[in-house]
Amino acid sequence: MFVVMVADATEADIIGVKSHILAEGMTPYEHRGAERLVVAVVGEIGSRRNHLLERLGGLPGVERVTPISKPYKLTSREFRPEDTVIRVLDAVIGDGSLTIMAGPCSVESREQLLETAEGVKAAGATILRGGAFKPRTSPYSFQGLGVEALRYLAEARELTGLPVITEVMESNQLDIVAEYADIVQIGTRNMQNFSLLNACGRTQRPVMLKRGYGATIEEWLMAAEYILASGNPNVILCERGIRTFETATRNTMDVSAMPVLDTLTHLPVVADPSHATGKRSLVPPLAMASVAAGADGIMVEVHPRPEEALSDGPQQLTLQMFRDMMAKLTPLHRLVASDRRAAAPA
Amino acid sequence: MFVVMVADATEADIIGVKSHILAEGMTPYEHRGAERLVVAVVGEIGSRRNHLLERLGGLPGVERVTPISKPYKLTSREFRPEDTVIRVLDAVIGDGSLTIMAGPCSVESREQLLETAEGVKAAGATILRGGAFKPRTSPYSFQGLGVEALRYLAEARELTGLPVITEVMESNQLDIVAEYADIVQIGTRNMQNFSLLNACGRTQRPVMLKRGYGATIEEWLMAAEYILASGNPNVILCERGIRTFETATRNTMDVSAMPVLDTLTHLPVVADPSHATGKRSLVPPLAMASVAAGADGIMVEVHPRPEEALSDGPQQLTLQMFRDMMAKLTPLHRLVASDRRAAAPA
Amino acid sequence: MFVVMVADATEADIIGVKSHILAEGMTPYEHRGAERLVVAVVGEIGSRRNHLLERLGGLPGVERVTPISKPYKLTSREFRPEDTVIRVLDAVIGDGSLTIMAGPCSVESREQLLETAEGVKAAGATILRGGAFKPRTSPYSFQGLGVEALRYLAEARELTGLPVITEVMESNQLDIVAEYADIVQIGTRNMQNFSLLNACGRTQRPVMLKRGYGATIEEWLMAAEYILASGNPNVILCERGIRTFETATRNTMDVSAMPVLDTLTHLPVVADPSHATGKRSLVPPLAMASVAAGADGIMVEVHPRPEEALSDGPQQLTLQMFRDMMAKLTPLHRLVASDRRAAAPA
Amino acid sequence: MFVVMVADATEADIIGVKSHILAEGMTPYEHRGAERLVVAVVGEIGSRRNHLLERLGGLPGVERVTPISKPYKLTSREFRPEDTVIRVLDAVIGDGSLTIMAGPCSVESREQLLETAEGVKAAGATILRGGAFKPRTSPYSFQGLGVEALRYLAEARELTGLPVITEVMESNQLDIVAEYADIVQIGTRNMQNFSLLNACGRTQRPVMLKRGYGATIEEWLMAAEYILASGNPNVILCERGIRTFETATRNTMDVSAMPVLDTLTHLPVVADPSHATGKRSLVPPLAMASVAAGADGIMVEVHPRPEEALSDGPQQLTLQMFRDMMAKLTPLHRLVASDRRAAAPA
Repeated sequence: MFVVMVADATEADIIGVKSHILAEGMTPYEHRGAERLVVAVVGEIGSRRNHLLERLGGLPGVERVTPISKPYKLTSREFRPEDTVIRVLDAVIGDGSLTIMAGPCSVESREQLLETAEGVKAAGATILRGGAFKPRTSPYSFQGLGVEALRYLAEARELTGLPVITEVMESNQLDIVAEYADIVQIGTRNMQNFSLLNACGRTQRPVMLKRGYGATIEEWLMAAEYILASGNPNVILCERGIRTFETATRNTMDVSAMPVLDTLTHLPVVADPSHATGKRSLVPPLAMASVAAGADGIMVEVHPRPEEALSDGPQQLTLQMFRDMMAKLTPLHRLVASDRRAAAPA
Repeated sequence: MFVVMVADATEADIIGVKSHILAEGMTPYEHRGAERLVVAVVGEIGSRRNHLLERLGGLPGVERVTPISKPYKLTSREFRPEDTVIRVLDAVIGDGSLTIMAGPCSVESREQLLETAEGVKAAGATILRGGAFKPRTSPYSFQGLGVEALRYLAEARELTGLPVITEVMESNQLDIVAEYADIVQIGTRNMQNFSLLNACGRTQRPVMLKRGYGATIEEWLMAAEYILASGNPNVILCERGIRTFETATRNTMDVSAMPVLDTLTHLPVVADPSHATGKRSLVPPLAMASVAAGADGIMVEVHPRPEEALSDGPQQLTLQMFRDMMAKLTPLHRLVASDRRAAAPA
Repeated sequence: MFVVMVADATEADIIGVKSHILAEGMTPYEHRGAERLVVAVVGEIGSRRNHLLERLGGLPGVERVTPISKPYKLTSREFRPEDTVIRVLDAVIGDGSLTIMAGPCSVESREQLLETAEGVKAAGATILRGGAFKPRTSPYSFQGLGVEALRYLAEARELTGLPVITEVMESNQLDIVAEYADIVQIGTRNMQNFSLLNACGRTQRPVMLKRGYGATIEEWLMAAEYILASGNPNVILCERGIRTFETATRNTMDVSAMPVLDTLTHLPVVADPSHATGKRSLVPPLAMASVAAGADGIMVEVHPRPEEALSDGPQQLTLQMFRDMMAKLTPLHRLVASDRRAAAPA
Repeated sequence: MFVVMVADATEADIIGVKSHILAEGMTPYEHRGAERLVVAVVGEIGSRRNHLLERLGGLPGVERVTPISKPYKLTSREFRPEDTVIRVLDAVIGDGSLTIMAGPCSVESREQLLETAEGVKAAGATILRGGAFKPRTSPYSFQGLGVEALRYLAEARELTGLPVITEVMESNQLDIVAEYADIVQIGTRNMQNFSLLNACGRTQRPVMLKRGYGATIEEWLMAAEYILASGNPNVILCERGIRTFETATRNTMDVSAMPVLDTLTHLPVVADPSHATGKRSLVPPLAMASVAAGADGIMVEVHPRPEEALSDGPQQLTLQMFRDMMAKLTPLHRLVASDRRAAAPA
């Protein structure tokens, strides 16, 4: 439930509300909106709903207490109507600009990474991606260069100024990944690795949470809720395709997730057409579709020589293809964004 | 398999090839491309492949005989590299212009239809849709006005000049539907009603074939092949969402079908975001996404007063929402189309 | 809604109730249970619910009027608590005995069919299956022998005494199919071919309705409702696998449909492990599973020489495999059935 | 690839082969079958296939070297034709006996667990299940009693003699869980938590690996391969339902996975109808179906008072329902097992 404070609530009122919530064994989370301060009450409310509604509703400075039907609380638009905007170095995600996360599936060598980083930067990427620890279906496949890759990513950041995003696969890796990376990524297979979600909730880095390939949108938001409830408000959602019976593509990208999420949550959403389709030629049209449907950005795999890639070669764009895609994506985003501004209330 | 004729093949050569094909118990289909005439050989080839390759390859005027691995033949880009362009009254589908099929889910009354028809025409629709015979999950739901609705559709065409599309549910209805409608539609539940496909293959009207909600893209193209093989080359494909585990939307629109089909087939493809999402607010963003991904057009349900609709009320746009959507869709299409023209070979 | 009559309601009372229902523009269906006669009211009730409840509740001989939340009415256990038992020649379906429908995918020749018919009869089959009109994904695949096959099926019935089941693909075929076959089958691709459902509702033959491969259990029951509402109470449901992301089998057999249907409907349910799995070796274990889960029977494809079959060779059992399967299935059914009898109320 | 040694290969021969494999940067795994010793070569073989085939094929004591097409190696029946049999205290899994893992979803109190443990033991359970660390979709749901629950499980083992299985959610928990539990379970959401798989590969405890609800059978076997490749051969697979469009059940149990796995792998397979269906009444028929299809056992949730359960109440059996189910399952298994013995080669 949410406790909405009156416009002129004092700090003492707010502390009073929070203390009462803590005393009930629940956790308070505050959000300072444009007009009102709201305190979310999270925990196992269960049968104490009415007791809490009455108790908190009577405290000084409280305008009203609202029960929430949605199972996710901090993640919901109801709690926080304003978009979450995340700033990392010079990149801003979720403010209406177009976020482009580009780079190789795996960091394979210093040269490969630096060449890609400079190429994608020149073509308009705003964030550099690259896999250091790779989750692979087979134990016998290339598992990534690990910490060596993290060092190359840091070097590429120095060179290009682009913030770096890379995947973390377990809680024990989080410290070292967060030391080098600007954004940590939770992969599709770990979307409900609750230990990892909790650990990422305690880091200072923004977290990009990929949708589980078998997960509903609601489960995805519940996974994000773990991160927010553990203390980290800076979460980016990434749609990367779901499992269906169709075999023409690796997965089926749920493009409708973009507008659905826009109504349900304040978190920014990017789309990953590389993993969704598994085929290079399908990446640009699905990137276009995602931006047209309202995505805040795109994550895309780019490799100087995809045919030599150690992982996911068939879905990585060449640098030339990436440049061509950017030449189409930029005016499309401008069109969609101007339309959005026109629609926004004065 | 395809028999590619030499550039200066005579009519006698072509007749000779077709006669041989018929004599083998197969059916010949010709396509006159820009440079070459190609004759497709369809039927149960099976073990006679090598025999046929050799026999046909030796005939006068034959440049080469090419086996086709794909199970669909006439539908494939390999047989016909050029896009199929379909003309109906003043509407042209598949030529790079934006096709907008709009109108109510069901024709409910003369007034409702005419009001909608004028409204969508004014906002830029190019084709009028409206259900006369309605396939309904329940035998107790409104099943459409039938022939009465067909007459209103014809009247609306007189009034607006828009060609009319409506669904046909069984072979026995085809004559009456084709008498009134300009394009006949096969619904998602009938995608593999092979009797109906064959019947539609023998009509003179263009046919719009909706994807079965449980069908793969390959099965969909095989269903189109039934229509083409029965003699009707004017088929429009319509993506309308597939069944998945996600429950936030009525179906999951497979936006990747747009670029996938563009490589596999020469047939035009439109997208139906109304049935794909089942929610009015999701229709415009999915329409945008589909056009950005390369759709030739959109089919969309519009109702003057959706809250009074006898079927599918929650997914029908108001006329104002339709106008707003068109104001965004038109510049988006212009952008995507100009980009396509730039990419086309000189 | 259901009108439950008092135990000593007169025929005049019953006629009175039915007349009122007809006068309201609805259709009455009666079911004479062990203790009470129940009249179902079907049609577009909509906003007239309260009016009808009151009106019908006040008629002579009416005990109570019950609204039904389920969208299927005649198909539901609520309307008819007793199992539907269907008798065809010497076969009885739905009475607790084990129904075994066996035979070739397609009738390919007189010899092939008669050999198979005698073989399956000897091994314990109770009904002979065989395709005459074959729905095929490709227009270029073998489409069945048609009427010639129907004649062979009739001859096989003469020879073995087994009733015959075969598929009907369109309304126009129904007369000829019903002339030769004892049970008509509606295939998975036609589950929502509403014209065909209505036509089958008007035939005297029992109908086996296969589940659409993309259809939910509720949609399947709604399709059965079309047949019952058109006047034919003798419907058998057949689970044959649904579309999922798993590729190890052709479809995924929804074995849980057996107990789910047992609570929702009074109609008998058989399972088709041949189409569900697409692999011969998986047919016996899935047949066992289906009977253990409560299926009333099994439909299975058997061919004397599957490697020569014109359709679905990989999934057809040899006669020896069929005999081996029957040797396991019979004692399993005895065990499960005795257990059921023990559980039934005295 | 597999190196098959001659029947009279010496220990020196075997050591020689293994040394060569290690020298090539690969890992050798041996399996001593009834007649032959086989050494699997695992690692990134890639382009060195022919070199390795030739090199290893020429070593003393080598009969032949066989490349394997399947992506899983140690898990495959090809490597180890004999069933893996796992012994834990008095329980034996995979030897043809019926394994019954029963107990509450969550351990909620000492009393609740001990009462359940004694009840399920008396009714024929062979292993006690109970959740200590609970993976929950919502961060605000009951997360389990943790180590306190582990202590109660150990006490229940003392009392009943039943070995104990419980879930481990992260590598850091593994030591403490393995200290108390006899079998550690990896849950459906962690099936591709590769760090956890590797950690479980290094423990001495048998591991039960649940299928990911969105995972194919092949991906599931690849996940098992991680455990085997890390050194732990004692893996039990557990089918617990997959995500489909059907909403009548929580998931759709893939009963065909039982016979499919029987041909692909030597590992034992149990079925979990509680999570597959989510409904108490469906658990017994699905348990019957799974055993009839060849499952080595069943995992089932049982609670003395399901209506008071802190998690998954609707799917937990009462003790009486569990007893009734066991009374049916035991003779069914006897029937299926005797049939299997008859089919086994002399």
